[in-house]
Amino acid sequence: MQLTRAADYGVRAMVHLASMPANTRAGVADLAKAAEVSAPFLTKVLQRLTSAGLVVSHRGANGGFTLAAPACTISLLQVIEAVEGPIQLNLCTGPCLAHATECNRQAWCAVHCVWMHAQAKLREVLAQASLDILARDSARRLELIHQDR
Amino acid sequence: MQLTRAADYGVRAMVHLASMPANTRAGVADLAKAAEVSAPFLTKVLQRLTSAGLVVSHRGANGGFTLAAPACTISLLQVIEAVEGPIQLNLCTGPCLAHATECNRQAWCAVHCVWMHAQAKLREVLAQASLDILARDSARRLELIHQDR
Repeated sequence: MQLTRAADYGVRAMVHLASMPANTRAGVADLAKAAEVSAPFLTKVLQRLTSAGLVVSHRGANGGFTLAAPACTISLLQVIEAVEGPIQLNLCTGPCLAHATECNRQAWCAVHCVWMHAQAKLREVLAQASLDILARDSARRLELIHQDR
Repeated sequence: MQLTRAADYGVRAMVHLASMPANTRAGVADLAKAAEVSAPFLTKVLQRLTSAGLVVSHRGANGGFTLAAPACTISLLQVIEAVEGPIQLNLCTGPCLAHATECNRQAWCAVHCVWMHAQAKLREVLAQASLDILARDSARRLELIHQDR
């Protein structure tokens, strides 16, 4: 029950994009450095984020990546699910009650309700965290660390 | 970010043990049937549950497994962590704040706090679900299904 490394690096890259000044673009090398991962690995992650419509890849001399929407409208949950698919705590839980997977025990198994409840709580916390707040909080903490030195 | 099959089958077996009349024991074959898994696979899971002190293995003619403590004192969280180790949503989160793993970004990374918060919520839901309530709820639902037939 652990986040994939791909999703973790995707989140790092997205928070970095959210921290950049408006109208600036970041290349794969910069994003890979910010996420502390290899460029080939991050390229695959960026492809998934682009396919999910969270990131735009600009071509040309001034090319690079930008967020596809304002950072305040993109949640941690969206980034994670773009990279590793819908969060599914157990085989019998879909991303929400309406999409719960069929299980022959589901009609009577009381544990199924707990899996659904736990999954909903987990998704709720991740949905409430937007990229702009994460980027601003991180920047503020980094500033304080630099001031202390 | 998904429960292991071992933990799921462990939970099924534990709920079955919790549903049995007092002073009765269940053999591996019965538990495997109840959990809908092979006996060799469940044997390994039961070894972890025994090591964790949640289950007692009785030898002899009347041998078999019982819960090591009243079902109302054993939570879903305890069963899961006995089988698959402490829940750790990301590499930087330990089972609680005091045991968070070192990460060189931890001092400033705002996402770390969200991982910790999400993990705490997930553990909270699983800690609140005790085996006796799960066993009773499941039994009641099964009864209703049989009445309807």
